[in-house]
Amino acid sequence: MVIAKQLFVLGASMLATALTGGAGAQQADEQYVQVAEIEVYPVQLDAYRAAVQEQIDAAIRKEPGVLVLYAVSEKGDPTHVKVFEVYRDRSAYEAHLGSDHFKKYKTTVEKMVKSLKLIQLTPIMLGAQSK
Amino acid sequence: MVIAKQLFVLGASMLATALTGGAGAQQADEQYVQVAEIEVYPVQLDAYRAAVQEQIDAAIRKEPGVLVLYAVSEKGDPTHVKVFEVYRDRSAYEAHLGSDHFKKYKTTVEKMVKSLKLIQLTPIMLGAQSK
Repeated sequence: MVIAKQLFVLGASMLATALTGGAGAQQADEQYVQVAEIEVYPVQLDAYRAAVQEQIDAAIRKEPGVLVLYAVSEKGDPTHVKVFEVYRDRSAYEAHLGSDHFKKYKTTVEKMVKSLKLIQLTPIMLGAQSK
Repeated sequence: MVIAKQLFVLGASMLATALTGGAGAQQADEQYVQVAEIEVYPVQLDAYRAAVQEQIDAAIRKEPGVLVLYAVSEKGDPTHVKVFEVYRDRSAYEAHLGSDHFKKYKTTVEKMVKSLKLIQLTPIMLGAQSK
């Protein structure tokens, strides 16, 4: 994979503008950002990781409104998983919830997950190196 | 800003490979990922936001080893801020801590921050739409 170093620093409004071509401030309000805090049963951890990887791969490939899905686990306790999620807007989030790959994921992990907490977030600044 | 829709779905090893051109698995182990959970005094919230925006803008522009800095606040309680951070490796993180813009940020926010907790993370999958 060849990477052309290209800078992008995106505040919430810039990100919305950049990704939608729409008016900055209004679009920014419409972005849907959350973190899912998930506790996974220890014996299910490998299976859970595989399921979430498959789901993220499909969502990014098939849903242009799914902008970011970063799944991580705590180094000190890998059963504590977080998924940091950015959607173009609320309707992109709702479409994601209704997608086949998300429904498959939910069914697959139903018995693997001990607890799930969704925290809605407001972007302050989303900065990243671009490809 | 013109955005060419271009897909990238990056597992940890792919991300490391893509961004460094190095060997996948080994580089992935070296990535440094954490979330900073910060509680800000309510009256200082606007000033804190400005300081963290300035810091992120400088870090992404000046430090190619700083891959992602996503600052967000909880919608239900904006004094609860999280910064999701991905560095190329530990030395990129340490260089960031020693940078002028980070030291300025730390001094600026010293009296604004009630508590700070750093949680080291292991990437499971980092998926994002590319520009």
